[in-house]
Amino acid sequence: MQTFGDMPLLISSLLPADNGNFVPNEIVDAAGLRYGYPEFIRRIRKFANVLATLGVEQGETIAVLDWDSHLYLESYYAIPSMGCVLQTVNIRLSPEQVRYTISHAGAKTAIVHPEFVPFLQGEWKDGCPLERVILIGANDVGGTIPEGVTVHSDILTRIDDASADYVWPELDERATATRFYTSGTTGLPKAVFYSHRQIVLHTLAILATFGTSPVQGRLHKDDVYMPITPLFHAHAWGTPYAATLIGAKQVYPGRYVPEKLLRLIQDEGVTFSHCVASILQMLLDDPLAKEIDWKGRKMLIGGGPLPEGLARRALDTGMDIFSGYGMSETGPVQTINHLTTAELQQPMEEQVALRTRAGRPVVLCNIKAVSDDCAPLPVGVDGEIVFRSPWLTAAYADDAVASAELWAGSWLHSGDIGHFGADGALRITDRLKDVIKSGGEWISSQQLEGLISQVDGVSEVAVIGVPDEKWGERPLALIVPVAGAANCDKRVLDRLAELADAGVLPRYAVPETVKLVDGLARTSVGKLNKKVLRTLYGPKE
Amino acid sequence: MQTFGDMPLLISSLLPADNGNFVPNEIVDAAGLRYGYPEFIRRIRKFANVLATLGVEQGETIAVLDWDSHLYLESYYAIPSMGCVLQTVNIRLSPEQVRYTISHAGAKTAIVHPEFVPFLQGEWKDGCPLERVILIGANDVGGTIPEGVTVHSDILTRIDDASADYVWPELDERATATRFYTSGTTGLPKAVFYSHRQIVLHTLAILATFGTSPVQGRLHKDDVYMPITPLFHAHAWGTPYAATLIGAKQVYPGRYVPEKLLRLIQDEGVTFSHCVASILQMLLDDPLAKEIDWKGRKMLIGGGPLPEGLARRALDTGMDIFSGYGMSETGPVQTINHLTTAELQQPMEEQVALRTRAGRPVVLCNIKAVSDDCAPLPVGVDGEIVFRSPWLTAAYADDAVASAELWAGSWLHSGDIGHFGADGALRITDRLKDVIKSGGEWISSQQLEGLISQVDGVSEVAVIGVPDEKWGERPLALIVPVAGAANCDKRVLDRLAELADAGVLPRYAVPETVKLVDGLARTSVGKLNKKVLRTLYGPKE
Repeated sequence: MQTFGDMPLLISSLLPADNGNFVPNEIVDAAGLRYGYPEFIRRIRKFANVLATLGVEQGETIAVLDWDSHLYLESYYAIPSMGCVLQTVNIRLSPEQVRYTISHAGAKTAIVHPEFVPFLQGEWKDGCPLERVILIGANDVGGTIPEGVTVHSDILTRIDDASADYVWPELDERATATRFYTSGTTGLPKAVFYSHRQIVLHTLAILATFGTSPVQGRLHKDDVYMPITPLFHAHAWGTPYAATLIGAKQVYPGRYVPEKLLRLIQDEGVTFSHCVASILQMLLDDPLAKEIDWKGRKMLIGGGPLPEGLARRALDTGMDIFSGYGMSETGPVQTINHLTTAELQQPMEEQVALRTRAGRPVVLCNIKAVSDDCAPLPVGVDGEIVFRSPWLTAAYADDAVASAELWAGSWLHSGDIGHFGADGALRITDRLKDVIKSGGEWISSQQLEGLISQVDGVSEVAVIGVPDEKWGERPLALIVPVAGAANCDKRVLDRLAELADAGVLPRYAVPETVKLVDGLARTSVGKLNKKVLRTLYGPKE
Repeated sequence: MQTFGDMPLLISSLLPADNGNFVPNEIVDAAGLRYGYPEFIRRIRKFANVLATLGVEQGETIAVLDWDSHLYLESYYAIPSMGCVLQTVNIRLSPEQVRYTISHAGAKTAIVHPEFVPFLQGEWKDGCPLERVILIGANDVGGTIPEGVTVHSDILTRIDDASADYVWPELDERATATRFYTSGTTGLPKAVFYSHRQIVLHTLAILATFGTSPVQGRLHKDDVYMPITPLFHAHAWGTPYAATLIGAKQVYPGRYVPEKLLRLIQDEGVTFSHCVASILQMLLDDPLAKEIDWKGRKMLIGGGPLPEGLARRALDTGMDIFSGYGMSETGPVQTINHLTTAELQQPMEEQVALRTRAGRPVVLCNIKAVSDDCAPLPVGVDGEIVFRSPWLTAAYADDAVASAELWAGSWLHSGDIGHFGADGALRITDRLKDVIKSGGEWISSQQLEGLISQVDGVSEVAVIGVPDEKWGERPLALIVPVAGAANCDKRVLDRLAELADAGVLPRYAVPETVKLVDGLARTSVGKLNKKVLRTLYGPKE
């Protein structure tokens, strides 16, 4: 029996004590609004009243399509706490895919930024489950919303006007709180889902891990937090829940525009943020980046490798850049790459290598590199990375085949290849499906990409495997040169030859050819889309 | 259904990843042993094998009677993880009370330091449930162990020799992991108990709270931790579990002897410790204390008020002293008094007042000051402090009456009087049963004690209420002067009059008389025993 001494782990408990009355910090929305924590907590209850008034019932799924707004943060709490499931819709997917995910989730309600209304207006191949659309803002809807769907305007005004009295229902901590879709490069998007309990434990565990780093990359109550990983993507790595629980100042940037993000970092004093490598690259490429004092600002890179070239560039600005690792399926955070005090004393060149590791396990996370038959591999030996922990998705919803594959042998399979070093830190060396098998040896496309990214004149790089009669596969390097850079391909090949001579790289890993290209295909979240690249640059059938 | 993506919260999961292989720190026992985390984790499994070999079965209660040793820390993990209940026996209780608690717990096994064997050799009024006694060390047992109890020698050698292969059984996270007895000043000791889940959540929450303090009182992986609150007392405030999970260096001091504790602090570089106020007083009184550089060493005071005089004295040494609040019944930690960055900039005199607060709620803790009918009181108004959180004892075991009183109105009642300030921090002003009711007003004995403790020449102080015909009750101050201090009583009365003139103290709170005494009665854990003091110095019946 649960009692008040053994309370369920619910998202409504992930708020500062006493309705936030004693939190000195604000929540800032780039659109111009800023308010204190007491108002934030009142707004969550008002939000629930608005939804209830419009007919939303406990157990429903509610889809949210928005940029990173204060409303989105409020929805993180209001929707699960009233016993509904928050579907964070990936608005980088194609409109057809967006409709597929809403159909698949069976969402009866969608809360929609006017910019994304057109997403709902195409053909619903799988049927439209929506009963109501609630617009953010008072804008008129152009085009046609499917018949039978009631359109309500202006949720912001409704929230302003609603009562702040709302008693959260009693919920099972294992009730589903959130659902979102992985933007896989193959097949249809797949649904992962998390319970209240899992989100509470993830929040506590990342705070315990971030907080107890001796020096580097620590998150604390005086930090100013801004996500640059969208709120639709794996709960923005769970960091909004963590920042809210400790009552930190938070900044929500709306749509990501480099200049706006940089101005917010400067003007609001952002000290802790996170993004994928390509976004940081974009930020540092903006002229405004040079005007910012980056010293000590913490930037967590995840959702893919942190290239050494980018790490060096960021360190040169004084930024405290580091990496983490996890997946949409894993909560998401599983490792954080905090440098130890001894590691921080290493020279810059060593630190570049250290800061690009995936990192050490978050508390309560059990992570292994395993062989094909799921046996654990020793330190230093590459294998597939698998997980057990209290906050992994139980399955892909309504997809028994993919779920069984995900959970083969009762470990969650990452599809990533990597190993633990003698320092206890995980290194990811490749995607299982991107690894290049050449003459019986594995070649890590990510290692090659990291090394090539550091050659002068290289802007972007991708390495893919192409079929080879003699070796099975050979690596092909695709390079986007910086504007005006000459002989980039030759310099890359020379540099790789040098690195092979120096023993940094196995000789069989040096590609024979480098191809200069204008751009590289990426997925909706900015990762290299190697499937497309292999189709484009592999053999023509 | 629980899966490997939603694993139960068990104490066996509160260990560093990968069997501690990558933890660079040691666990040190003052008796001379030191070992790394991999050895620690092996020893936990060996420990379980020893118990299983001696016939211990899942579900049994195992009593431990020891000083703060590495073995005790190992028992924190081995005993609950094999599905048994760890009873941490309060060896400061009288031998008769110790036997009562073992009887009441129904412990079949006791692991006993030779020094405490005599505790088991008196009369067992409530029957002796023990089937086996396992000695720490190879010493012979003098006297008689109750008939039918098998005595096994030398658990340490047995552990050394045991196999390290032991597979933890699958357990329900709500299974009881620990049990211990409150050393109440009235009646028989009462049993509180905690589940695996509660201990895991307490550990995560205190790490999240300690870790995210911006500057003051933070716990991190480079800290060197030593308990000076006994391991038998409320899991040493849960800090050994927290220190172990982050892989910090830990020092276990055995029996508390001031000189030994001070040498360990110096020689092992202890940076984070905790104790009750009277122990810190004793440490600072030792001549060796002056040789220690206290700067930045974090010292958490709990288990009773931190007197302002002691706070000032500790701050003068450079020590980072601060307080926390909780009870045996509450996990125990409920508030931690981290100073904010702004508060740290206050002058010393202000900081003394700030550092003696009880503090702000730990994450997930719901704490209120309430009126007699359990209604929440506004900021600044004294009332009884009550709790709800995920790690409160469900009841006093086998005591329905006391349990109902503890949980009246579905809040856990502290029996403490206090209020929240406008800074969100809790101040405890008195014990409900120690508060002095005079002429319809409440007088805080703790406020008076705090003020009197700061008068020159005062070594110890207690304020109690004594019956008064006109006012109902009046305060009486009992003072132990420092050796050679003259006119201590007059100086105290003069100072209190000044403070009343200055408005610091209500005029009705100034006692008419001060009594000089040789010493003050204390409980087994060093708290003032006001029940005894009222009997000694109140009216003779």
